Amino acid sequence: MTLKLHCFGESGNSYKAALALELSGLDWEPVKVDFFGGQTRGEAFRADVNVMGEAPVLVDGEVKLTQSGVIQQYISDKTGKLGGAPEEKYEVLRWVLWDNHKLSSIAGMTRFLMNFLPEQHRSADVIGFNQGRLKAAYTVLDAHLDGREFIVGRNVTNADISCCGYLFYPEPFGFDRADWPNIDRWLSNLQGLEGWKHPYDLMPGSPADRA
Amino acid sequence: MTLKLHCFGESGNSYKAALALELSGLDWEPVKVDFFGGQTRGEAFRADVNVMGEAPVLVDGEVKLTQSGVIQQYISDKTGKLGGAPEEKYEVLRWVLWDNHKLSSIAGMTRFLMNFLPEQHRSADVIGFNQGRLKAAYTVLDAHLDGREFIVGRNVTNADISCCGYLFYPEPFGFDRADWPNIDRWLSNLQGLEGWKHPYDLMPGSPADRA
Repeated sequence: MTLKLHCFGESGNSYKAALALELSGLDWEPVKVDFFGGQTRGEAFRADVNVMGEAPVLVDGEVKLTQSGVIQQYISDKTGKLGGAPEEKYEVLRWVLWDNHKLSSIAGMTRFLMNFLPEQHRSADVIGFNQGRLKAAYTVLDAHLDGREFIVGRNVTNADISCCGYLFYPEPFGFDRADWPNIDRWLSNLQGLEGWKHPYDLMPGSPADRA
Repeated sequence: MTLKLHCFGESGNSYKAALALELSGLDWEPVKVDFFGGQTRGEAFRADVNVMGEAPVLVDGEVKLTQSGVIQQYISDKTGKLGGAPEEKYEVLRWVLWDNHKLSSIAGMTRFLMNFLPEQHRSADVIGFNQGRLKAAYTVLDAHLDGREFIVGRNVTNADISCCGYLFYPEPFGFDRADWPNIDRWLSNLQGLEGWKHPYDLMPGSPADRA
């Protein structure tokens, strides 16, 4: 049975689920969420799909899961892939949680504020504050990746897929690969994986649609 | 062997680990982290304890774990407690991730900005923006708790312990229990659990020490 992922191209959190599905080799198809038309903020979406009002949502028959980190765990449980070795499970979860707390959450919001929110609603203080927090996160990740090909162990895991969620997007939010050599090399490693695709090639929806 | 938790009273993320240790009945003791003296930002802490520069850190013999959600998972694996029923594991993880992304991360930062950062460094725009995000998070949690005693299933799980991380603190950050009746009732349920303690009673360090 084909898994369905409710997602949209601009969402780095959706990308984490889509990339995990693609790299694990599962049969899946995207269902476009009309985020920019307000779908996730509507009562119907909250009542029927996700009380949290967020994408992605994975549907596998009777199973419906939300939160990208949960979907990643489900994919690993189902396929045996991307979870790392058994003794690495806490280390993989550690970086998924750190990413949700310190990296993707702030990167996604800052990218939204700088690119998708109407200019008159943007606050330079808020953007600057969040870029400062992002710089601290890049510093942690770049230091950890010194001498490593992937975040945990020797192969790609959900830790990598979580942390890279927003880092391939072209829209500016205060991240330049050239500033972070270890992160840059690691992102190239991910791009070199068989099956890797850019978010705008993997999911429907991109800023070009609304131009 | 007594587990050691590197923590400090003001840290809601530390509280999540400390409360899980206490409610699970494990033998543990706190080791105070001098956050306000800069310990977590120092090179020695990053090199020896946690590259992420964060508390809490759990030490169990040769095992050293960071990220409150990882420590919670470890405690559940070790004791069989607080993880929910096997079929609830994705739902527990879902709320732990949501909390890291949307609730504790923002509550902790906003409380820091409003109470612990020198006044001249505070930005009303940044505080207001984050309080708006927090209000959206309280709305999601309050709606989910309608008709429920705990977040997942009928008993306390790591989902509850994660989401309550910052909600018992007295310092203002834009949260008033009286505004959110389902959250208020749920927090009372947690306070009624055998072994429940307030963060300042469970861990060393509180604003009173620095007054």
